[in-house]
Amino acid sequence: MAGSTYGTIFKITTWGESHGKALGVVVDGCPAGLELSEEDIQHYLNRRKPGTSNITTPRKEADEVEILSGVFEGRTTGTPISLMVRNTSQLSKDYSEIATYYRPGHADYTFDEKYGFRDYRGGGRSSGRETIGRVAAGAIACKILEQLGVHVCAYTRSIGSIEADMTKFSKQTALTTVTAMPDEDANVRAVAFLEEARANCNSVGGCMECIVEGIPAGIGDPVFEKLDANLAKAMMSIGAVKAVEIGDGTLVSNCLGSENNDSFRMQHDHVIKATNHAGGILGGISDGDTIVIRAHVKPTPSIFLPQQTINKDGDEIDIQIKGRHDPIIVPRAVVVMECMTALTVLDSMMINMSAKLDKLIDFYKK
Amino acid sequence: MAGSTYGTIFKITTWGESHGKALGVVVDGCPAGLELSEEDIQHYLNRRKPGTSNITTPRKEADEVEILSGVFEGRTTGTPISLMVRNTSQLSKDYSEIATYYRPGHADYTFDEKYGFRDYRGGGRSSGRETIGRVAAGAIACKILEQLGVHVCAYTRSIGSIEADMTKFSKQTALTTVTAMPDEDANVRAVAFLEEARANCNSVGGCMECIVEGIPAGIGDPVFEKLDANLAKAMMSIGAVKAVEIGDGTLVSNCLGSENNDSFRMQHDHVIKATNHAGGILGGISDGDTIVIRAHVKPTPSIFLPQQTINKDGDEIDIQIKGRHDPIIVPRAVVVMECMTALTVLDSMMINMSAKLDKLIDFYKK
Amino acid sequence: MAGSTYGTIFKITTWGESHGKALGVVVDGCPAGLELSEEDIQHYLNRRKPGTSNITTPRKEADEVEILSGVFEGRTTGTPISLMVRNTSQLSKDYSEIATYYRPGHADYTFDEKYGFRDYRGGGRSSGRETIGRVAAGAIACKILEQLGVHVCAYTRSIGSIEADMTKFSKQTALTTVTAMPDEDANVRAVAFLEEARANCNSVGGCMECIVEGIPAGIGDPVFEKLDANLAKAMMSIGAVKAVEIGDGTLVSNCLGSENNDSFRMQHDHVIKATNHAGGILGGISDGDTIVIRAHVKPTPSIFLPQQTINKDGDEIDIQIKGRHDPIIVPRAVVVMECMTALTVLDSMMINMSAKLDKLIDFYKK
Amino acid sequence: MAGSTYGTIFKITTWGESHGKALGVVVDGCPAGLELSEEDIQHYLNRRKPGTSNITTPRKEADEVEILSGVFEGRTTGTPISLMVRNTSQLSKDYSEIATYYRPGHADYTFDEKYGFRDYRGGGRSSGRETIGRVAAGAIACKILEQLGVHVCAYTRSIGSIEADMTKFSKQTALTTVTAMPDEDANVRAVAFLEEARANCNSVGGCMECIVEGIPAGIGDPVFEKLDANLAKAMMSIGAVKAVEIGDGTLVSNCLGSENNDSFRMQHDHVIKATNHAGGILGGISDGDTIVIRAHVKPTPSIFLPQQTINKDGDEIDIQIKGRHDPIIVPRAVVVMECMTALTVLDSMMINMSAKLDKLIDFYKK
Repeated sequence: MAGSTYGTIFKITTWGESHGKALGVVVDGCPAGLELSEEDIQHYLNRRKPGTSNITTPRKEADEVEILSGVFEGRTTGTPISLMVRNTSQLSKDYSEIATYYRPGHADYTFDEKYGFRDYRGGGRSSGRETIGRVAAGAIACKILEQLGVHVCAYTRSIGSIEADMTKFSKQTALTTVTAMPDEDANVRAVAFLEEARANCNSVGGCMECIVEGIPAGIGDPVFEKLDANLAKAMMSIGAVKAVEIGDGTLVSNCLGSENNDSFRMQHDHVIKATNHAGGILGGISDGDTIVIRAHVKPTPSIFLPQQTINKDGDEIDIQIKGRHDPIIVPRAVVVMECMTALTVLDSMMINMSAKLDKLIDFYKK
Repeated sequence: MAGSTYGTIFKITTWGESHGKALGVVVDGCPAGLELSEEDIQHYLNRRKPGTSNITTPRKEADEVEILSGVFEGRTTGTPISLMVRNTSQLSKDYSEIATYYRPGHADYTFDEKYGFRDYRGGGRSSGRETIGRVAAGAIACKILEQLGVHVCAYTRSIGSIEADMTKFSKQTALTTVTAMPDEDANVRAVAFLEEARANCNSVGGCMECIVEGIPAGIGDPVFEKLDANLAKAMMSIGAVKAVEIGDGTLVSNCLGSENNDSFRMQHDHVIKATNHAGGILGGISDGDTIVIRAHVKPTPSIFLPQQTINKDGDEIDIQIKGRHDPIIVPRAVVVMECMTALTVLDSMMINMSAKLDKLIDFYKK
Repeated sequence: MAGSTYGTIFKITTWGESHGKALGVVVDGCPAGLELSEEDIQHYLNRRKPGTSNITTPRKEADEVEILSGVFEGRTTGTPISLMVRNTSQLSKDYSEIATYYRPGHADYTFDEKYGFRDYRGGGRSSGRETIGRVAAGAIACKILEQLGVHVCAYTRSIGSIEADMTKFSKQTALTTVTAMPDEDANVRAVAFLEEARANCNSVGGCMECIVEGIPAGIGDPVFEKLDANLAKAMMSIGAVKAVEIGDGTLVSNCLGSENNDSFRMQHDHVIKATNHAGGILGGISDGDTIVIRAHVKPTPSIFLPQQTINKDGDEIDIQIKGRHDPIIVPRAVVVMECMTALTVLDSMMINMSAKLDKLIDFYKK
Repeated sequence: MAGSTYGTIFKITTWGESHGKALGVVVDGCPAGLELSEEDIQHYLNRRKPGTSNITTPRKEADEVEILSGVFEGRTTGTPISLMVRNTSQLSKDYSEIATYYRPGHADYTFDEKYGFRDYRGGGRSSGRETIGRVAAGAIACKILEQLGVHVCAYTRSIGSIEADMTKFSKQTALTTVTAMPDEDANVRAVAFLEEARANCNSVGGCMECIVEGIPAGIGDPVFEKLDANLAKAMMSIGAVKAVEIGDGTLVSNCLGSENNDSFRMQHDHVIKATNHAGGILGGISDGDTIVIRAHVKPTPSIFLPQQTINKDGDEIDIQIKGRHDPIIVPRAVVVMECMTALTVLDSMMINMSAKLDKLIDFYKK
């Protein structure tokens, strides 16, 4: 098992390496009848494209998606949707040297240990380009969720020590700043910080956040398939993520029950919570409030400073990595977080449809 | 789907509510030939028992496990191992009042939304007693892992602001302190802090940590089934966990690449890392170093202070919870963390067996 | 993986051996709100009980089911339903001799090869008693299907060369004859045939049939998860089944297209088929007509004639099996077929709920 | 769920419709290190090509496979292998008329009922072309199995009433006759029979058989994941298959135990069976003998005689299908059967690797 399939009902299978012919995804279990065009998907892929600012790699990646199956006369048919992006700008010659040694912070060594050898060109399957399939599939999930009244939105919460001021939060800003920060001022400071890191041949980490609005209460299962458990897996499956938080997250380990509990209140006949420390999930099941997830992303491991490592012969050596690498992963990973969240939430909503007997009977006997 | 099954090859299915007749687990896919007795399992269940100190609930729970199938003449047969613990001390009368309202921080409301009604006696399926099945199954996984040279150990890292001094770390201490802290001094201070919280009718959160030693490099899959992704799901599936960290965890979002990268070095012909910021996992695959996971646990939601909430009729009401509840979840959840980690690691090791063609050929053609 | 879990949304996990302490099943994913009592399940278990006629084993098996979880105040809660039947009449001393050799037609040899040893008492996990869990779970699936208007009914189609005359078909007869045949005359002849086989220390095979009425068109998936593919797996997973047919079954390989095609016709605004050679499934998806499945069951392998085999030391030996064994498997397996069919159909109906986008939107936005 | 994924460890996901841009498959879980080229796969795809005789459709389908990922420097990397075949000869104009009515014996009606509409061009997802993905993936499974000493071979057993004489069996003949029959004489008679059917505007059914040689004893699981249960599902998932038999198959229902039981014997220190009525599987687990599977395939539903049906408006109409259709499905489906068998057997062998504790310990501690 190479673990390239995700989801139970809305099930995706990604494939492709950074320097192969193409990358793609098969989306199985998409409901029939959704209007879908390549533009719907391209819009999301463009958000993860590099080369749009001086804080991302100057590599040009066209990343044009092609729908190969599953759509007929503009609508999904219910059968697998195959999506492909051809690799166009990958130059294998850049990577000949790194074939011989293990880059610190990369998966070179672990791939060799697992599989006996590896596609050493630019990260192969553990490259950030692997996420193209996730984003292409997630674009479809997002479109369906919108029609269900569920809105998913991810953005950069912090870069290094520079945190977005959430009182200035704007979804639109997050879509337009080069850092994907939802606060213009923080973006300016973060860009300066990133330029400094780049000048120092170094890289920096950051934190991304995703919110889900409009999800009904009652989604998720109470034991192993808790909604937050699946979200945690989804987030940690994104390369370079090292921590996941729901709601107050790590803060809960240093607070009191009286501080952490959210009171239930009524608002115009609707149940609400006075606060949302829980991040919209109680006992693994959505409570109707906004779901809040954070993922902490390590700095880009490819830095241009000298580093110590070993080669395949077991010699200790000093290396200095060259090439084109972003000084930070976060801004381009934000859309991946949004897509993985959407895939997880949509699948949970589909699985949930038979939870109540009366709803099941209604569905088939109306 | 109620999501009560976990694992791919080593697969467990838990069942039971806090106030039903019994709780248990079916362990399917356990290799044949393992010596297994009820004592092996009881030893782990005893670690999650309450009533052993004045910081846990004074409820008496015998929690004696019975092996119902899958073991013959003292060894596992390869067929499902059914384990059951009868409920003995559960008094339904304690819970008659809470049937009518939604306790803050609990899953009462979300269960009602999902299923239309709930077993209101003591948390039902979202009670901490649900973990009995996980621990019983995990005891078996731990025993197998030991025979593979893999050692899993969880303990309390912090309670409120009181953190264990890891330079004083002792596995044995973690097994004997009432807080499950591996540092005797921190334990003394934590107990005082817990007694104060209890006196104030309040509860506190904490952080638990788990380490896995001896796991070979190469375990885990590179995309959705990353070892850390599955560990994150496993941890977040434990009730009350709100954040999961691997290695440096949340710290990575505020550090530089030069700080975060671990250099590879050689030690007596073995590959090692000079540091372990990665927590033993690179690109979703184990790197041979110690795996380090942390889970942050919210305070027990059942506190004895007055709280605001609503009842099932949608009236805003004030409540004051009575009964027997631990002021902290962490010390009894540590063994659950250890067991979920063991289940995840063992399953990944089994799945990994066909990763290399030459190993597959060796297996069948020797 | 010991493969003891079945289903995707309505998921069951069976456990137990013929001579262990108990057998049972965990039913996960049952919708909340179903009225359920032990009588509902016992009714089905009684249909597979032996000892009710002189063509079945004189062993007494009480097989009383106990509901251990998942039901509260008479209704299912949506959480796992654990069902257990204690073994009461199993005498291990009967089986001491067969521990040393491999019975022809049994799984003794294959278990030893797979697991290295086996529970040699009465078949262990490959005993017919394993089906207790399937039937207990299937009783629940049948009850739900009835509320959806879907009726599942299995019966004995033939025993040796004696075939039920389907023009005399009566469901009620099938429930009362000792052979489970739906035709009283055939039953009488079959009983005589069975008594002759028993007198000759031999055993006989037979064919069982199952029909599903009231299932809507559109259930099942078009490729690997075809409804008939899943039914075939379900049937072949019943011990001793060696062939499965849908509709005309094996006859299709010797007929013309003009004979096999079923014409579509209209009847009172409903789409019907003029004939049902397809057995209610086209392209893996139900067509609204009656589903017809047949399973061919080999003779009981335990016969009382002398047989040639080998022992564990690899010596060729002659054996003569003793004990209590039915001369035919079919009559007691009919309810197993009915239950496996019900489990498969119900799970397919649950999975199908998100096939159309407009239905998904209706479900969540009404 | 559209059910387009098959397998647990060796997992394939197929996609594509008969008249879309392309068809393909993603193979996930292929061990690293297998030498693999497009020729390896093309060889199998060529066996299912039409247009090679006057008993198959005169359509030209180039069906050239392209490897898009997962192979590096001529060897598999362990990551997903994406295989694609572009559609080149599909003319949508041929199919404009059938959009309005439901062809007897086809999945037109059931697709419309399930999904609300369908891709009406040539069968869409339920076209025989869907099997391109299965065959491409199966070619890889076959290549691996050969290296494990396991040989899979399928052929046509009968066409109409013309049966191959198995005393004349030749694998090579099966690969060269236009009927895929392993007996030259039967092939000649079958071709005459098929030409007659074609002249009569009719079609015929047939039976295909697959044998697996060299599989070790002990593969398969004892309950739901029986090897024969999974093979039955695999066979019935091939379009137009209506019955599946293992070993003696349907004959078992009319024989005696003394006839059906296979005696165990010794041959040069190896355990053998004196006969193979069981078809190589006992209790769901391989017994080391040749596995024998048969699948009965209905006649091609597209016949050129007048037929009765209904249109989408619910009018009863008469139709006469035109176009290019094989008068029999079997010869081109034989390689699909071989591939589905190989996929099932290989996956079972991978899953089986952790069945014995001592083997698991050996694997990780050597």
